[in-house]
Amino acid sequence: MKIGLIGLGKMGYNLALNLKRNGHEVIGYDVNQATLQNISSEGIAIANSLKQLVTDLGENRLIWLMIPAGEFVDAALSDMKPLLEKGDIIIEGGNSNYKDSIRRSGEWETLGVDYLDCGTSGGPEGALHGICAMLGGSKLAFDRMEPVIKDISQPGAYLYCGGAGSGHYVKMIHNGVEYGMMQAIAEGFEMLQKSGMNLDLAAIAGLWNHGSVVRSWLMELTEKALIKEPDLASIKGIMHSSGEGKWTLETAMEKQIATPVIALSLIMRYRSLEDDSFAGKIVAALRNEFGGHALIKK
Amino acid sequence: MKIGLIGLGKMGYNLALNLKRNGHEVIGYDVNQATLQNISSEGIAIANSLKQLVTDLGENRLIWLMIPAGEFVDAALSDMKPLLEKGDIIIEGGNSNYKDSIRRSGEWETLGVDYLDCGTSGGPEGALHGICAMLGGSKLAFDRMEPVIKDISQPGAYLYCGGAGSGHYVKMIHNGVEYGMMQAIAEGFEMLQKSGMNLDLAAIAGLWNHGSVVRSWLMELTEKALIKEPDLASIKGIMHSSGEGKWTLETAMEKQIATPVIALSLIMRYRSLEDDSFAGKIVAALRNEFGGHALIKK
Repeated sequence: MKIGLIGLGKMGYNLALNLKRNGHEVIGYDVNQATLQNISSEGIAIANSLKQLVTDLGENRLIWLMIPAGEFVDAALSDMKPLLEKGDIIIEGGNSNYKDSIRRSGEWETLGVDYLDCGTSGGPEGALHGICAMLGGSKLAFDRMEPVIKDISQPGAYLYCGGAGSGHYVKMIHNGVEYGMMQAIAEGFEMLQKSGMNLDLAAIAGLWNHGSVVRSWLMELTEKALIKEPDLASIKGIMHSSGEGKWTLETAMEKQIATPVIALSLIMRYRSLEDDSFAGKIVAALRNEFGGHALIKK
Repeated sequence: MKIGLIGLGKMGYNLALNLKRNGHEVIGYDVNQATLQNISSEGIAIANSLKQLVTDLGENRLIWLMIPAGEFVDAALSDMKPLLEKGDIIIEGGNSNYKDSIRRSGEWETLGVDYLDCGTSGGPEGALHGICAMLGGSKLAFDRMEPVIKDISQPGAYLYCGGAGSGHYVKMIHNGVEYGMMQAIAEGFEMLQKSGMNLDLAAIAGLWNHGSVVRSWLMELTEKALIKEPDLASIKGIMHSSGEGKWTLETAMEKQIATPVIALSLIMRYRSLEDDSFAGKIVAALRNEFGGHALIKK
């Protein structure tokens, strides 16, 4: 099928190659001219403006957005508003907040354009070799897109989740679970490292991927990282986050759902951003005030 | 090789069949006569007493203990003390506390008997088809046992971790990580269930096992459970625990290692054992005292 792909960053670029490899006709668009030239040299058609992209796609357009979540998506959608027509489908594959997807879907519905939200897991490698896709929005629009989605996903790795926003909701929860699993694994390996038993952490991660209850892709990645550098001495334990864990917790609070482990996984990431903490100073000061306990001076 | 197997419960029984299938000569012993008769009918030799077991094994004995952790292990070891000789090896495959294993290893060392601690993952199915084994103790004793351990483990699924207690330490941490991963998955699925989007949880678990970051054996089991009963209506959310999570947390506290997610996973299990909580009553009472907030009467 013919697809317009807007956003040729790490994910979008590889997705374009994935689509092409699977016999789809891609027209790529990006605000970055160098990226456009690069992908053009891989034999992928390009458009030099949104308007040209829309013209080149003809009618009943399929447009895939793969750009950073938030205002960039709204800006691109705003630019597309005067160009698209009834019968067109937008599929938005970024890490958007599901509430934004529900709002955007409603806005496009009034114009007769179907808006699918697509939570995409697998990173740039997945984008190239096969994503894991969670889709929400009109079932009819999904049905029209399904042959494309099937081609670019790993076997069995796409799901129509339900109405507008459900794809990004499921992806958000996926990432919340990921935060908790990662923190659990990480705490375990800190305990192995501090065992005083001189354990071979990479070998243990490898072992645990063979027949144990905790075998998982994350444990495979743990093994891989520990083989490269057994003590991880060259990196700092700063754990950034890109928003989905925070949204999971915000949603849990809105719905009053007890999610202590996901919450604490997020909070430990925030704690890791600081070498020292003001909360720590307060507790140290209080212990000194009421008990005369020694303070560590800066 | 010739192995004496003490303890023919769910794990030991299957381990005996696994050993036999792999060409080893097993002599089984259990205090339960019915169990002994059952395994005898599967063509496995039995002993009617510890003493007979030790006699039938001859010299340089290999004795595998597969009995419930704690006092049962100490009782069995105590009974074995006058019977074993220098050159014998005991391998203890239960979920013992690593500190008990260190102590026991030291006690047997004075008698010239090597004591290996073996953390065993995989459950009864693993015991039958291939365990995941984490071993600690004398390297020489491990080397002697290795052909047996290799045969009854899944491919690549055994590891000599280090000195006495290290096998059970690694297994303890494995279970601590398991607690955290399970709680993270569980919280995510509660959020999916309460999404208001009528999501197909089994389908989502299935999807997440194809190409997503959270793919894991635990997610496969989640899918399996949700296929059997999508709303899990027939079971209560009571989460028992068998001790290893508690030991992980106790060890973390001894070593002053921050393991908030593993800790909270354990605490949520304890919370699940109670329909109501006294802490909840206290908070409700305090809110009433200082703010006049309504109380829910029993």
